[in-house]
Amino acid sequence: MRKTHDILVETRAALPALTASTEKKNLALGKIAERLLQEQDAILAANREDVEGARDRYGEVMIDRLTLTPERIAGMAQGVREVAELPDPEGRVIRRVERPNGLVIEKTSVPLGVVAIIYESRPNVTSDAAVLALKSGNAVVLRGGREAYRSNAAIVDAIHHGLEDAGLPAALVGFIEDTDHASADELMRAVGLIDLLIPRGGAGLIRRCTENAKVPCIQTGTGICHIFVDASADLDKALDIIENAKTSRPSVCNAEEVLLVHRDIAADFLPRLCDRLTTQRRAKGLVPVELRLDPRAAAVIPGVPAGEKDFDTEFLDYKLAVAVVDSTDAAIAHIAAHSTGHSDAILTKDDENAARFTMLVDSAAVYVNASTRFTDGGEFGLGCEMGISTQKLHARGPMGLEELNTYKYIIRGDGQIR
Amino acid sequence: MRKTHDILVETRAALPALTASTEKKNLALGKIAERLLQEQDAILAANREDVEGARDRYGEVMIDRLTLTPERIAGMAQGVREVAELPDPEGRVIRRVERPNGLVIEKTSVPLGVVAIIYESRPNVTSDAAVLALKSGNAVVLRGGREAYRSNAAIVDAIHHGLEDAGLPAALVGFIEDTDHASADELMRAVGLIDLLIPRGGAGLIRRCTENAKVPCIQTGTGICHIFVDASADLDKALDIIENAKTSRPSVCNAEEVLLVHRDIAADFLPRLCDRLTTQRRAKGLVPVELRLDPRAAAVIPGVPAGEKDFDTEFLDYKLAVAVVDSTDAAIAHIAAHSTGHSDAILTKDDENAARFTMLVDSAAVYVNASTRFTDGGEFGLGCEMGISTQKLHARGPMGLEELNTYKYIIRGDGQIR
Repeated sequence: MRKTHDILVETRAALPALTASTEKKNLALGKIAERLLQEQDAILAANREDVEGARDRYGEVMIDRLTLTPERIAGMAQGVREVAELPDPEGRVIRRVERPNGLVIEKTSVPLGVVAIIYESRPNVTSDAAVLALKSGNAVVLRGGREAYRSNAAIVDAIHHGLEDAGLPAALVGFIEDTDHASADELMRAVGLIDLLIPRGGAGLIRRCTENAKVPCIQTGTGICHIFVDASADLDKALDIIENAKTSRPSVCNAEEVLLVHRDIAADFLPRLCDRLTTQRRAKGLVPVELRLDPRAAAVIPGVPAGEKDFDTEFLDYKLAVAVVDSTDAAIAHIAAHSTGHSDAILTKDDENAARFTMLVDSAAVYVNASTRFTDGGEFGLGCEMGISTQKLHARGPMGLEELNTYKYIIRGDGQIR
Repeated sequence: MRKTHDILVETRAALPALTASTEKKNLALGKIAERLLQEQDAILAANREDVEGARDRYGEVMIDRLTLTPERIAGMAQGVREVAELPDPEGRVIRRVERPNGLVIEKTSVPLGVVAIIYESRPNVTSDAAVLALKSGNAVVLRGGREAYRSNAAIVDAIHHGLEDAGLPAALVGFIEDTDHASADELMRAVGLIDLLIPRGGAGLIRRCTENAKVPCIQTGTGICHIFVDASADLDKALDIIENAKTSRPSVCNAEEVLLVHRDIAADFLPRLCDRLTTQRRAKGLVPVELRLDPRAAAVIPGVPAGEKDFDTEFLDYKLAVAVVDSTDAAIAHIAAHSTGHSDAILTKDDENAARFTMLVDSAAVYVNASTRFTDGGEFGLGCEMGISTQKLHARGPMGLEELNTYKYIIRGDGQIR
């Protein structure tokens, strides 16, 4: 097994090769897509070993996330080609000023350098992350989970071959062979070798990064998302939005976890909600939503009394914490106390309440009359995403190609002194 | 003495008051400027006590940085009025998309929240930092040095009175009363109370932040700035630029510390450099520059042999490390190994070398044919600055009002579900 430090040094050393033109980068992405298809058998064979090894230790959902098929590999290759189609974020002049002394100052977008990502289970993240980094001009260090090690290694082989086909060094995509905690910790401390570390995984990984990282880090993906139904909301649309936000894909970070209902409509709305999320879903053969109710909601409809932590939990499941609040300001205060700053929504016909909510709720995405499920690079028109940032520095919300760049000032003169 | 934690909680609680209009914020800045002038006597009296207390422990330069005069207070007030004149960075729609499903997505600039700053000696930073934060919609926590404690407290009194005159809570500007290391460490760990911490001080403070901070931090102001004189450079202009970059203000972070000279011109240029920076300056009664020479430079001109650390030292003094290099690429490699990523320059008539240098030198400001001394918010046309970032995430180079904002996505729909 190769040492993590050696891989980091090698990736960093390859960086100057990435002063490649847009054409060259897109050529490499095309070659990578070809290689993923050509090397499909090797990838599928490696994946079968991973799946066999995981069968005893993981549940069905996890096994499904891990499993590759010819269709999924074709999807990966298609994703690579779509990134090639996106505009190159590098080299944009963000602002240009010509100063009275004749200096021309251009604030210019440039790659960050080496972007590292720590992720789990889904092997398609391997190709997604690699090509997003390459397209934005960065080298990348990939550190996937142990359960997907063989699949990831086979995918990285194909990526390396694609890079070489395009005349670029394979070392631009570094693959960490050690899948112990120790290698993740080493990435967190690799000052000078890594310019940005993106932890993409459970709350434990994110917390370890916040606590221990010495390199710049972007926290992603913890979403305790709220929907507040104001007194003036269209209640039919509210039911549609809530069912969508809660049940269309409960395991993702932009799913709703908490519902706040204005007291003036609680007696009318909560019974309809209960009917829609439990009775009707059962009747349709769908998984019903378990409602965890604060005392005021429990006074109106049946459900499980909310426990102490239910308003601070990312259920990622068919569970919804429900509370009754007195006003828009009370909803804003609840969200300030409990939100993870991911996505929160108000459903209302009152423009003033909508404006107050969008101004005061301090989250990456703040919605008026729509489902929180739209917080996604594709849905936002960014074409793709590296993760969804829940912090405020540098990038907030879906991180696309532009967010994988920084900028520098390039100043041209003809002898100016100060 | 009030507890640091209590001040942080109070400042954070005041934050919603800052959803103020541009007019209201500018009104407050005007009132602050008035109060600084009105309360000049109290500020000067407090400052005299600080200066008396510092007299035995600090040198002349430090005493000068600490000392306030009626002119300097007038300058502070003028600075506040100039910030009021700058455009409001809040609420800009950075990107707007209307999606096929009818969702309107606006990426909108918003304040970070609570910005904390740890700084030393110069009391005018107190008003500069406070008004930059307020203008950009942030609350601010100020933690100055012990030597300026009384001056800072008197300035903060004036700021508080100005805020109250404008009908805003004084708590928007929190003033940390404890000037021990412990209070700085407490700010570094105040997760949830501070959105951005800016350490503005010596290398020791910056390092302590990098090592210990749990809150988002922006490193500022360490500058080991290089100038590379290429074979094709205009040598007369080169002498002007180098003398300016080294001697116009040696104590600041954008001053030159290292000179790299192409081997093809070393025999011609180095003697002229030596004459200009030593003999001529002595003749004019100016402080001569001490040249610290690598062996190849020492073979051409007299000077002190460079010690092991001289190419990794921010002298902040009339000292210049000088090395001879073989090519533009060798200069780029030297800079990659030794620069702090602040400001680096190439002096050349060769467009290709200039392009290669600006592309490959990974610093906040990369110059062609100009002095590194221009890296400054005012000189870049930003109007002002909170510090000069030497990191790549979020802000790079001079941090003006825009860099004290983040963004959020505001999404408006009429019932969209995914």
